Amino acid sequence: MRVSMIGAGNVATHLAKALAGKHEIVQVFSRSMANAETLARATGCPCATNVPSRITADADFYIISVKDDAIASVIEQAPASNALWVHTSGSVPMSVFQGRRSRYGVLYPMQSFSKQVEVDFASVPLFVEGCDDATAAQVTALAQSLSRSVFPADSDTRRRLHIAAVFACNFANHMWALADDVLRDAGLPFSVMLPLIRSTVDKLAALSPAESQTGPARRLDYAVIQKHLAMLTGDCHSVYDSITQSIIKKHNPRP
Amino acid sequence: MRVSMIGAGNVATHLAKALAGKHEIVQVFSRSMANAETLARATGCPCATNVPSRITADADFYIISVKDDAIASVIEQAPASNALWVHTSGSVPMSVFQGRRSRYGVLYPMQSFSKQVEVDFASVPLFVEGCDDATAAQVTALAQSLSRSVFPADSDTRRRLHIAAVFACNFANHMWALADDVLRDAGLPFSVMLPLIRSTVDKLAALSPAESQTGPARRLDYAVIQKHLAMLTGDCHSVYDSITQSIIKKHNPRP
Repeated sequence: MRVSMIGAGNVATHLAKALAGKHEIVQVFSRSMANAETLARATGCPCATNVPSRITADADFYIISVKDDAIASVIEQAPASNALWVHTSGSVPMSVFQGRRSRYGVLYPMQSFSKQVEVDFASVPLFVEGCDDATAAQVTALAQSLSRSVFPADSDTRRRLHIAAVFACNFANHMWALADDVLRDAGLPFSVMLPLIRSTVDKLAALSPAESQTGPARRLDYAVIQKHLAMLTGDCHSVYDSITQSIIKKHNPRP
Repeated sequence: MRVSMIGAGNVATHLAKALAGKHEIVQVFSRSMANAETLARATGCPCATNVPSRITADADFYIISVKDDAIASVIEQAPASNALWVHTSGSVPMSVFQGRRSRYGVLYPMQSFSKQVEVDFASVPLFVEGCDDATAAQVTALAQSLSRSVFPADSDTRRRLHIAAVFACNFANHMWALADDVLRDAGLPFSVMLPLIRSTVDKLAALSPAESQTGPARRLDYAVIQKHLAMLTGDCHSVYDSITQSIIKKHNPRP
């Protein structure tokens, strides 16, 4: 596959590095010429540009990996090649291509990337969609050349994925922020909690989160729950109360 | 140090293995003779017993690592040696020893142990307390021979630690359980979320949880929040709403 990489940010960089070697990256585009050149160099690609109209018309696969609100304008400005076009966004619907290209889809890698941290791309879950069955199959094939974890996901499924990620990452992280508040009040650094957090995550490889749930709410230990609530104030108190109720409800459904 | 290990459960097993080599384990007691013998064998200890009154009077250090509600009765039944006694519980106050022993304290390893999973004990945070300064120093010295992470913690601090662990582990795990519900509705396995969860945890090595907070609530993206709430029902809806409010409040304090 001759791939044109449109974008040179975090996602584009990791994706392009995973593509290089398996496919030929023929051009890297970025608004920033320095970024385009850096990524081109890193992936053995001979051509970098920062002018949208100079994006090559001669690739098999165009990967648009730019900020969500720049996707539509990039599609407008790039040559309307008949090849296969995808974007990599979790929250932009595939229909952004409608009426502007004939063969298009989405290839969404669900991982938080930063240029400094190496990623084992083969284990990054990729969610794919195509405008028709043949196109979906082609996007899937490209995705499977990069990762062991490829799932079909239409725009509605991608939105649900995002909601799940909000719970699993953003909200879990907020629980750690509240734990940090409690620890700071006790004069302890947050780092004391890291081994326990890591082993809680490690359990998820073998058990579902519901199966591995422990703690006072899970075992209906109201004496401990009351003692804890009596020691908490403000937001820690109200979150402790509402999440405890939610755990009790989940594990003790009404008959 | 000549150590008597009272208990052969998960905590006792990992603690005894970490002690062996550095200290002499002179006896292992457990209600289950099979467990006492297994742990004695694993730690090169010549003596196992399941009779409380046969616990040796001849050790320097007694470590009581049994279920919380069995600690008091073990103290009653074991010989009232003048040596140093500790228990390993996060939630039983040190005062359980008061009037029953003269030198006592607590050595609480904050980690979730299972016999099957090896643990790098040197990185397990240990929280120590002693009935007086000299005793606290001795418990600290023993703890420092086992782990790089040793902190003084009185019974009140241990209770706050437990609250922090409820937020950081039990409540974070419940967020994963709710994410699992959302994913199951979308026809996806929970495993798709693991790489993202792991990288969220990895960020905590460099940033505080508050610093590394991301997501729609953090960036006050009310359009996305409203779309998500419209797609959720039941407990997922109410938890999404309350945690979103809590994140907004934490990161945008009233002037």
